[in-house]
Order: sequence, then C-alpha cells, then structure tokens
Amino acid sequence: MNCIRTTRAADSLRDIKITPDFLPHADGSVLIECGNTKVICTASIDENVPPFLRGKEQGWVTAEYGMLPASTASRMRREAAAGKQSGRTQEIQRLIGRSLRAVVDMKKLGERQILIDCDVIQADGGTRTASITGAFVALQMAVDKLLSDGLISENPITEAVAAVSVGVVGGVPLLDLDYPEDSGCDSDVNIVMTASGKIIEIQGTAEGAPFSLDELGKLIALGQKGIAELVQHQQKALATQQ
Amino acid sequence: MNCIRTTRAADSLRDIKITPDFLPHADGSVLIECGNTKVICTASIDENVPPFLRGKEQGWVTAEYGMLPASTASRMRREAAAGKQSGRTQEIQRLIGRSLRAVVDMKKLGERQILIDCDVIQADGGTRTASITGAFVALQMAVDKLLSDGLISENPITEAVAAVSVGVVGGVPLLDLDYPEDSGCDSDVNIVMTASGKIIEIQGTAEGAPFSLDELGKLIALGQKGIAELVQHQQKALATQQ
Amino acid sequence: MNCIRTTRAADSLRDIKITPDFLPHADGSVLIECGNTKVICTASIDENVPPFLRGKEQGWVTAEYGMLPASTASRMRREAAAGKQSGRTQEIQRLIGRSLRAVVDMKKLGERQILIDCDVIQADGGTRTASITGAFVALQMAVDKLLSDGLISENPITEAVAAVSVGVVGGVPLLDLDYPEDSGCDSDVNIVMTASGKIIEIQGTAEGAPFSLDELGKLIALGQKGIAELVQHQQKALATQQ
Amino acid sequence: MNCIRTTRAADSLRDIKITPDFLPHADGSVLIECGNTKVICTASIDENVPPFLRGKEQGWVTAEYGMLPASTASRMRREAAAGKQSGRTQEIQRLIGRSLRAVVDMKKLGERQILIDCDVIQADGGTRTASITGAFVALQMAVDKLLSDGLISENPITEAVAAVSVGVVGGVPLLDLDYPEDSGCDSDVNIVMTASGKIIEIQGTAEGAPFSLDELGKLIALGQKGIAELVQHQQKALATQQ
Amino acid sequence: MNCIRTTRAADSLRDIKITPDFLPHADGSVLIECGNTKVICTASIDENVPPFLRGKEQGWVTAEYGMLPASTASRMRREAAAGKQSGRTQEIQRLIGRSLRAVVDMKKLGERQILIDCDVIQADGGTRTASITGAFVALQMAVDKLLSDGLISENPITEAVAAVSVGVVGGVPLLDLDYPEDSGCDSDVNIVMTASGKIIEIQGTAEGAPFSLDELGKLIALGQKGIAELVQHQQKALATQQ
Amino acid sequence: MNCIRTTRAADSLRDIKITPDFLPHADGSVLIECGNTKVICTASIDENVPPFLRGKEQGWVTAEYGMLPASTASRMRREAAAGKQSGRTQEIQRLIGRSLRAVVDMKKLGERQILIDCDVIQADGGTRTASITGAFVALQMAVDKLLSDGLISENPITEAVAAVSVGVVGGVPLLDLDYPEDSGCDSDVNIVMTASGKIIEIQGTAEGAPFSLDELGKLIALGQKGIAELVQHQQKALATQQ
Repeated sequence: MNCIRTTRAADSLRDIKITPDFLPHADGSVLIECGNTKVICTASIDENVPPFLRGKEQGWVTAEYGMLPASTASRMRREAAAGKQSGRTQEIQRLIGRSLRAVVDMKKLGERQILIDCDVIQADGGTRTASITGAFVALQMAVDKLLSDGLISENPITEAVAAVSVGVVGGVPLLDLDYPEDSGCDSDVNIVMTASGKIIEIQGTAEGAPFSLDELGKLIALGQKGIAELVQHQQKALATQQ
Repeated sequence: MNCIRTTRAADSLRDIKITPDFLPHADGSVLIECGNTKVICTASIDENVPPFLRGKEQGWVTAEYGMLPASTASRMRREAAAGKQSGRTQEIQRLIGRSLRAVVDMKKLGERQILIDCDVIQADGGTRTASITGAFVALQMAVDKLLSDGLISENPITEAVAAVSVGVVGGVPLLDLDYPEDSGCDSDVNIVMTASGKIIEIQGTAEGAPFSLDELGKLIALGQKGIAELVQHQQKALATQQ
Repeated sequence: MNCIRTTRAADSLRDIKITPDFLPHADGSVLIECGNTKVICTASIDENVPPFLRGKEQGWVTAEYGMLPASTASRMRREAAAGKQSGRTQEIQRLIGRSLRAVVDMKKLGERQILIDCDVIQADGGTRTASITGAFVALQMAVDKLLSDGLISENPITEAVAAVSVGVVGGVPLLDLDYPEDSGCDSDVNIVMTASGKIIEIQGTAEGAPFSLDELGKLIALGQKGIAELVQHQQKALATQQ
Repeated sequence: MNCIRTTRAADSLRDIKITPDFLPHADGSVLIECGNTKVICTASIDENVPPFLRGKEQGWVTAEYGMLPASTASRMRREAAAGKQSGRTQEIQRLIGRSLRAVVDMKKLGERQILIDCDVIQADGGTRTASITGAFVALQMAVDKLLSDGLISENPITEAVAAVSVGVVGGVPLLDLDYPEDSGCDSDVNIVMTASGKIIEIQGTAEGAPFSLDELGKLIALGQKGIAELVQHQQKALATQQ
Repeated sequence: MNCIRTTRAADSLRDIKITPDFLPHADGSVLIECGNTKVICTASIDENVPPFLRGKEQGWVTAEYGMLPASTASRMRREAAAGKQSGRTQEIQRLIGRSLRAVVDMKKLGERQILIDCDVIQADGGTRTASITGAFVALQMAVDKLLSDGLISENPITEAVAAVSVGVVGGVPLLDLDYPEDSGCDSDVNIVMTASGKIIEIQGTAEGAPFSLDELGKLIALGQKGIAELVQHQQKALATQQ
Repeated sequence: MNCIRTTRAADSLRDIKITPDFLPHADGSVLIECGNTKVICTASIDENVPPFLRGKEQGWVTAEYGMLPASTASRMRREAAAGKQSGRTQEIQRLIGRSLRAVVDMKKLGERQILIDCDVIQADGGTRTASITGAFVALQMAVDKLLSDGLISENPITEAVAAVSVGVVGGVPLLDLDYPEDSGCDSDVNIVMTASGKIIEIQGTAEGAPFSLDELGKLIALGQKGIAELVQHQQKALATQQ
C-alpha cells in the first residue's frame, strides 16, 4: 500500500478542535476532534475515594474509555452487551488514568476522586491520544470548579499534559497518524508529554518492522513538536471558559 | 414539588432537531435532540441474520441502547465496566427493536439484518422515545442505501414510526415530559405510533398514582398530536438527504 | 392459523385456582393456576432494605421471576447455567415489582423489604399476569404475618392488584390469552389494575398488526371484567387463611 | 441438640410419593416427595449430542439442578440473578448426571442426549438423593417414549438406580436424614446404588466427627435397605404409566 | 486397554517428594510430587474471617484449586480467561477445604482464616489427593508460624490428614492411580483419612462398572495403608522445618 | 526510601537461570528465574487458527499470563475465582503475544497457532519481561519440534527476542529492576528487543517523575546491554536441547 501522506505535511497535526462544556451535566467536558477522530471527554467529581485510599488524605484520578459501536468503519460489538471490556479498552483506560495522575498532586486534590470518561463517537486513528489530550481539558475544568467552589485552595495540577501518535510509514516519520496510516503500514509510537516537554509515557510498538534507536529519536522529536501545539489548543479552549 | 410547566404549552413538544449523517461510518445515522435530550442513532447493515432466521429468506431489525456515563445529572456506572446491561437498558432496547420491526416487511428486506444503536449522550427525560424517533430515520437511510445499491428492489418500510411520552403532572396531562416532569410527579405513558396513527406499543406506568381509563384516553390523544409532529420532523430530515 | 376460541367465551377467564401456603418456608406463598399456566409465588420478609433506602424509614417490595427449563413446550436454557437473566426475564420481574409497589404504602411497611419470587413451573401464556395476580396474594399473606406478629400496626396495602392479558385474535377481542392465542395471532395487551378499577400498568404490543384507539378501549374493558373476577379469586384464597 | 429420631424407626425412609407426568411438556417428569423434600424431575430428549460426541454414534445423559429461592427455611439467593451456579449446585448436578449415565448403554441410546432437570421446590434434607431417585423415573419415561416412537429399538437402561442419604446422629446410624438430622449432627453419607445392589457412587463427608470403617459398613447396609424400597416406589410409579 | 501395573506393586504409592518452603512469600508452602503429579500448595494467613463468621470468635480454613493450562497432556483452557471455574474445580476445592477443616479446632485458631491454594503444575492423576496431602503440610507450617509469633497459644490442629486414590483396574485393586490407570479403566475411590485412621471423606465413583461392598472394603484397606505412608512423608517434611 | 542498589552493579542483570523442558506435556517449556522472579513459560501447538485467519494460509502466536495467588508478598485474588482477568493481566499477555509475533514469519508457520502460557510462580519485579524472555525459548522449542516432525520445512523464527526492564532509581539508571526498586522509586521502562538490537516494543511509564529524552537514551542503552546477555542465556538453554 502507498501510505505516503499527501494532504498535510509529515510533521503536521490534523485539524484540532476542542469544544468545551459539551456535556453540561459533567463537572468538566469537551468534544475533541482530531481530524475525523471525535471523542467526548468528561470529568466527574466524586467525593469518595477508592477503598485503598480511604483515610489517606489524598485524592485519585481514574479513567474509563469506550467506543460507540458505529464509531468504526465496520460496526464493533457493544462491550456492555458482550459483558466485558476488551483487553484493548482496559489498556487504553489505564493509560489515560496514569497520564493524568502524573500531573496531579494528589494531596492538594484532597480526599476525593475525579472520574474521567472518554467516549469515542467517531474513530479515525489516535483515539487514545485524543482522549488524553481532551481529558486533560475536562480535568482542568473540574479542578477549576473545585477551586471556584472553595473545596480546594491550591491548584493540584502541576502542568498540562497531552498526547500524540507518531510513526514510520513507508520509511517516512509522520506526526499524528490517521487510521489508514496507523493500520496499513509500519511501527507507531504513542507519546504522552507535559507542557514542559517531559515524557510521561511512551509506548512504541513494532509488530511489523522493528525500529532502530535512531528512528525512535526522530519520532520523539516529532511528537514533541505536536504536543507543544496540542497544549496551545488546550489552553485556548480553557481560556474561553473564564 | 410544583411541576406545572411554564416554558411551553401542555400540548407542545420540546424543540426537536434531527441532524442526519451524524456518524459517517454507519449506513444511516442521526443526532436527535428533543430539548436537552440528545441521542445518536445509527443503523448498520449486516449481511447475516441471527441463527433462528437462517435460510428463511427474511430479514431482521434489532436494537441496542446505551447511555454515556456522564449523560445524566449524576454520573452513571458504565455498563461495559459493570459487565452487564441493566434491566432498564434491556427493556428499552427490546422496545426499540419491536417498534421498528412493526413497520418493516421482513420478506422485502431479504436475508440480512439492520442493527440499530441508540446512544444517549445527554439525558433529560424521554430517551427511549427519542431513540425510537431518531432510529426510524437512521433505519430509513440504511434502507434507502440498500435500494440505491440495488440490493433490494422494493421498500420494506410500510410507514414511519415515532414515539413520545405523555403524562399527568399535578393533574394536568402533558406532552413530551422532560426529566423533572417525568420523575418528580405522577404517572407517564410511552406511546409508539405509526404515521397513520396506529398504536404499535403503549406502556403506561403509574408507580405513584394509578390513572383512570378517561385519563388514558386524553393522554393517547395528546400523544397522537405529538407523534404527527415528530413524523414531520423525520420527513424533513430525510428530505435533506435526497 | 385458525385461532378462534371454541372452548370458552371470548370474555371468559381460564379456570383459576389459587392454592395458598404452597411453600411453607416462605412468609406467604401460593400456587396459582390459570388454565395450564402454573406459577409458584412466594413472599419473603427481609428485615433489611436496599442501600438506597437505608435510614429513610420506609420499606420496599421487589420481585424476581424465573421459569423451570421444562416449563415450556421445548426446553428452555436454564438461566443460572447461562450465567444471566434474559432481557425478557428482567422486564417481567421489573413489571411485577412496580405493580405491587403501586398498592403498598412504603412508610407503613417500615424499614424492611418483601422479596417476591415468581417461578413458572408450567407455561401456557400469561405467565407474567398470573405472576402478578398470585404474587399479590403471597404479599398480602406476608403482610398479614407482619401485622399478627405486631411488627407493623397498620396495613400498608391500599387495595388489591391483579393482572390479565387481552388481545385481538382473528379480529375478535379475547380475554386471558393462552399460548397458542398469544403467539400465533395479532396484538396483545397486559393490564395491571387495582380492585377499584384503576390502571397501574398497561403494556400493549403489536409487533404484527398495529391496533387502533377503538380496539384499545374494547380490550381495556375486557381486561377490567377479568380483573374484577381475579380479585374475587384472590379474596377467596385469602379468606381460607384466616 | 438432641437429634434422636422419634417419628420413625432409625432404618425407615420418610414417606415417599412419586407423581408421574407432573410437567406434561417434558418427555418424562415426576414430582418426587421424600417427607417434606419435594423435587420436580424432568427428562427432555434432545436430538443433538454435545460437540465432543458428534459422529461417535452414541448418546449422552446430563443433568442440571436448581432450588427455588423460597425452597429453604431462609430464602436463598436466586442463582440466575447472581449470575452463576454455586459450587454446591455444580457438584450436585455432576453427581446426578454420573449416576444416571452409569445405568445407560450409550450406544443403544443412539446419537441423542437426554437432559435431566431437577428443581427443588421444597427442601428438607436429601435433595440430591431425591433428585437422583426421581430423575431415574423421568429418564425411564423418556426412554419408553423413544421406544414407543420407534426411535430406538432396544432399551438402553441396564437397571434402575436410586439414592439415599445415611448418617450417624448422636451415635445412632439413621436412614434418610431430614434437614435437622443432616445439619445439626454428625457425619453423613450419600449412596447411589442400582436395583441389584451395586454401588455406583458413595460420598461420605465427616466435617464434624470422622467415622470409622466399621460405621461405614453399617451405613452402607442401611442405605442398601432404603434403596431397595426406593426402587419399588420407582417401579410402582412407572407401572401406572403403562 | 491393558492397565495392569508393572512398574510398582499394586499396593505401592508412587514416589513421593515434599519440598517445603517452595514459595517463600506464603506463610506455609510445599511442592508435592506424587510420581509425575506436581502441585504447589500454599497457606496464607488472613486476619479477617468471612462475613458469616464475624464476631463468632472462631477461625476458618478455605481452599482454592487450579491447574496450569499446560499441566495436562493436551492444553486445558485457562479458567481465568474463560471467566469461570469449572464444576470440577469447584468440587475439588470444596473437598480440600472440608478435609482440612475436619482436623482444625476453629476456636483455637482464633478469628482469622487460612487460605489454601493448590496449583497443579503437572498432572498425572490424583491431583486432588496430592493437593490435600500437600496442603496439610502448608497449613501446619502456617499454624506453626502463628504459634511461634505468639498469635495463638494452642495448636488448633488435632491430627494430620492425607488423601490417596484407590481403584479397581482390570479386576485388581490398586493404590495411588496415575492418569492412565485412572482414566482408562474401572472405578476409583478418593479417600481422605486422618493419621489415626479415621475416614474424613470418601468419594467412590463408578461411572463405568459399579463396585460391590466387598471391593469397597478392600479399597479402603489399601487406602489406609497408603495414607499411613503419606503421613510419614508429611512428618518428615515438617521435621526439616524445625 | 533508599533504593540505591548495593548487591550488584547498576548495569548488571540479576542471576538468570533458564531450565528447559520444565513441563513435559507442553511442546516447549522452560522455568525462567531472574533473581527471585520465577515464571513457567510453555508453548503448545494447536493445529487450528483463530476464526479471523481461517483459510489464509498463515499461522498465529498468542499468549496468556497468570500469577499464582501466593506468588506475591501479600496473596493476590485468584483471577479464575474472581471471574475475570485484570486489566494488568490482559495488558501483559497482549504485550507478550505482540513481542513474539514480531519475530515469526506467519506464512512459514503454516495454518496453525502456538499458544504461549506464562505463569508466574514467584514475583519480584520484571515478571512481564521475564515472561517474554522465557516464552521465546519455549516458542523456539515448539518450532524445533514442528521442524523435526516435518510439519514445517523452514524455520519461521526470524531472530531471537528478549525483554528487560530499566529505570531511574534515586537518579541512577539501573538495569533489571527487582520489586523494591520498581515500586518504591522513579520511572521505569520495559524494552523488548531482538538479538540484532532492534526495538520491538518500548513502554516507558513515569507515574511519579517524568523523564527527559536524555534519560530515555541512557535507559535504552542499558536495556540493549541486558538484552544481549539475555539472548546468550536463551541460546545456551536451547543448545542443551539438541
């Protein structure tokens, strides 16, 4: 297959659009669109913590992920009807949770948890990274609400976090893969990074062709560029809120 | 609680908006908005039928229903994480399936099934009736595709179907209840009717105060008025497609 | 198929037999036989309430429903072995619970619940309505026990409730459908009504041929007649208890 | 607790009553009553065999067991609602299946299976042994039907099988323990034996006080006496069928 | 099949090896090898008791059993992946638990439980009896730890318990069946006995050919001989610990 | 906590021991010990492929992972008893499967699959990487068997694969973390690499302190050194087989 990208530059993100307050019932919510990938991300404040944290005077952030059955090119089975979440779903929601927890000071959050839901309504590659990028905005909105309601006095978020996928397609390193690029071609790497450029999580998988250290370096640099831009989109969306 | 409606007439629907082609991967899809209730309805053509229909030269229509965890005022547990669909969910998706099958000639559909997914992204009462009304449009779109692709030669849909809730609130019969009206007050009835005014399904529940035959007649008349309007909204949405 | 009823009048119930105290371990129990449909209904007093009612000084009534695998013409799969209750089962047990709760003053019941079990041992149509009619007797027996044990001082039951199915078969409205009548022919309606003739629940389904408002009126009148007779059977069964 | 039996001799069975054709939909059925223990046993012919036997020109017999929630002194949780069968249930249904298979020549049964269902409607000890004794009668009835329908030409049943519990209570060996005898006191043994006195299965459990070889011999002799009587009850019930 | 044993005498155990402290994280652990059957048995002290024992000032012992997928000649399905334990697994773990509880004075154990895990890493017949024999050693080690830690003052174990299978193969009674002997031939009996020769549990199954009382006596005598030897192996393994 | 390593050099692996043929029933098996982490890895040949590959003339390799309940310092819940595999388990078994598939030419394997089981019997950090390293040896043994049995004619394995964890602990990059190093301190990275030094999978997680690009480079170099040594251990274990 010829996967050379023609519609945008190799180091360009897809069009990004973050619509805040998409679901008014949640404490924070956005619709994030990365090209044709669309994810509803919400943050719900829960004044309880999981059992293992009770009485420890600290908070928690956890995430769940799902896809609408018709979000994909051929309809997926509904996980609720199947009676369980797939391994892929669990892997992704664990990744989202870890990524957000890495930028939250749990002591400052106090003994409560914030539940993140990322529901993909349309999928075209990069749903897990779009989820992280969107979920951060929803999380920040929920935290802002805690601050403005006087439930916490200090901002527990240390800095912004965003995520993007990068990969080598037909020998060319590309930023922000869409589904045809991601599935038909070589290796890809998901990178979760903070606004200050620190890596929180990196997951590189090469089921097809293994990649070299050199290639990894190039991919990380591409990712760093993309994440810097994503953080700007996040800030812009949050700015409209205040 | 004072539930007397002030924002619209007792016999008025909420604002209805049906956006067709909301999820391009599906064979038919809409976003239906009934006031603050918003449901994504999709129809996916599957060239297989369930085992009990194999070789019988007829088709099938079935439905699944779900709610985003943050669609409700206080976050619901995700059914996929809980490992099963609630009784309420199953009841609703069975109702949606029966309602649509009542207007489809299964012989004309041929040996294939159409899978309907109704996913509530925001809930403010009447999610099951909005699902039926929206799902009909998605179903018609999928059938139109089968016709234009030459896979079937005759329209298997006998007429349009739509649904609405009606109820007695503070002694007053009201059309198209929103969540505060539905939950805080008296009895309610869900009515599924065809464009020609035939009742396909009627479900009246009076956990609080039982209703009389007389009240039921008034409620059905109200429902009939609402459904006639909903069918017009459906036709308008479908007209934009052709 | 020719479904015209020949063995009894169109407005006749099947032979009804209610045997109280069928399962002595329960706090109330009957075997109800409606023609060849036979259901064991029991009521068990539980001095706990579900979590959502704790401390609210009110009681609860809830129901579970099941069918013996060999109760039907061709053996059904055992739900316990399958690992879950079907959507139909859940729908029916929710209906039974709602129907009974509609005639119980939860404050007078006190902070306890009554668990209803309806187990079909032989099925010939109308198992859900027979379950409601029988379950009411079991419930009344359990309540009588609470009263005679001095655990409550006032009868929390406001009036009797019973249920029956009605339907149009070959153009003729019939009362109390058996299985061949119910499955081979037109639409049917399940009606739950109180002794004083108030509708608690009405569920009309017309997967085959939609019914008109006029037909619905006739069916409800038929149901009203049947329920009046069923309430007499209930009272007679209870009278033998005292 | 004083468990010495006063109502019948130490070597007496409880009153046994076997009502054939209790559930007319099944291919064979009985209600078996052993004192206050009551079990509905049915046999359903299935013209398929499990996958591991396909094409092997032999049949299969398998069993399922259940208890109505209100069959016990304090209501049990419904296994279908719990979503799984308990270890005890599985252990018992495996025992019933093995016991019946031991007296069936699977080649003569042909490539079909007979599904046994044993549903306890009232429990007062010995439900598993009553199930085996009753299930044999239902099985024989289903086999008789296969013979009279000409589906098989030779009787695949080699001889009758029945079961009974025996135990040491207060130092005294007793036949056919009821629930207070079984639960409040010493060790008990379930014996499954053929009409000709061969042991098919013996399960002795002494969670309280271990028993000696000598005691075991006495218990087996008691069981042998009881099973001879049970086989007569089985034959009498079957005789009424022809 | 010719199953006459040639490698050891009919009344000989297979080679037994008990390696204590096999898993250092547990409070007691052994690897028990009975010929080619190898089971890891561990005992873990848990300072909580199950809900039904709370506040009753007594302890509990319970067991779980599993097999590695590759422990058997053809790979078994992994129960964790299948989402449930088989009936056989549950039957075996209930047997292990009952067998150990029969030699423990629960009052002396105090309000805590000991969790036994028996995991078969290689299976060649007799996995349940090897599990019981090994689990007793692990249990004793955990109890010794409670005693040496001063958490209990008296030894709650009344005497040793061990288990072995015996069976009639080709007409010859054999001790300690391996898998070809167990599966290809006649009836077998699992015997659980104390060091003093009292029977705790006896489970004889003859799905093939029923056995007589006389044969049962011979088998029990064989089992008694084997268990006496197994108890010596247990003591030797425990002696190396002190 | 002071996590500075004192027992071996920062760039040293723990003691590695690979015992081939550990479970003789499997087609390939090893016990791999990395310090106190011990995993049984087996490969079972299955002459069927999953449904999505039927008729495609190619093979498949898939993996399952489990831990004995007593493998960890405080007993874990048994997943088979809990009725599902945790998200962590599924994540790990997916990683093992992907890692092995990356070095297998599925066309050359033919239409069959190799099922890998990795069962942790003792856990002290690095169980997923030890599983991959051990599983490769078991896989190679199973492939050697296919070759020597003449079922395939060409070796489908392109090169060896092994895995190791690296991490920054107290500011110092360390190779092959044990459990105290892994859990008490900073970020860690799991690296899966081929014998020729190509990265197949890299998973870096920094839930505590994010790491820089520079640190990542150092960690990858450390991992490369460790994997070269692990590949030698693999080859040595395989050499003893031939």
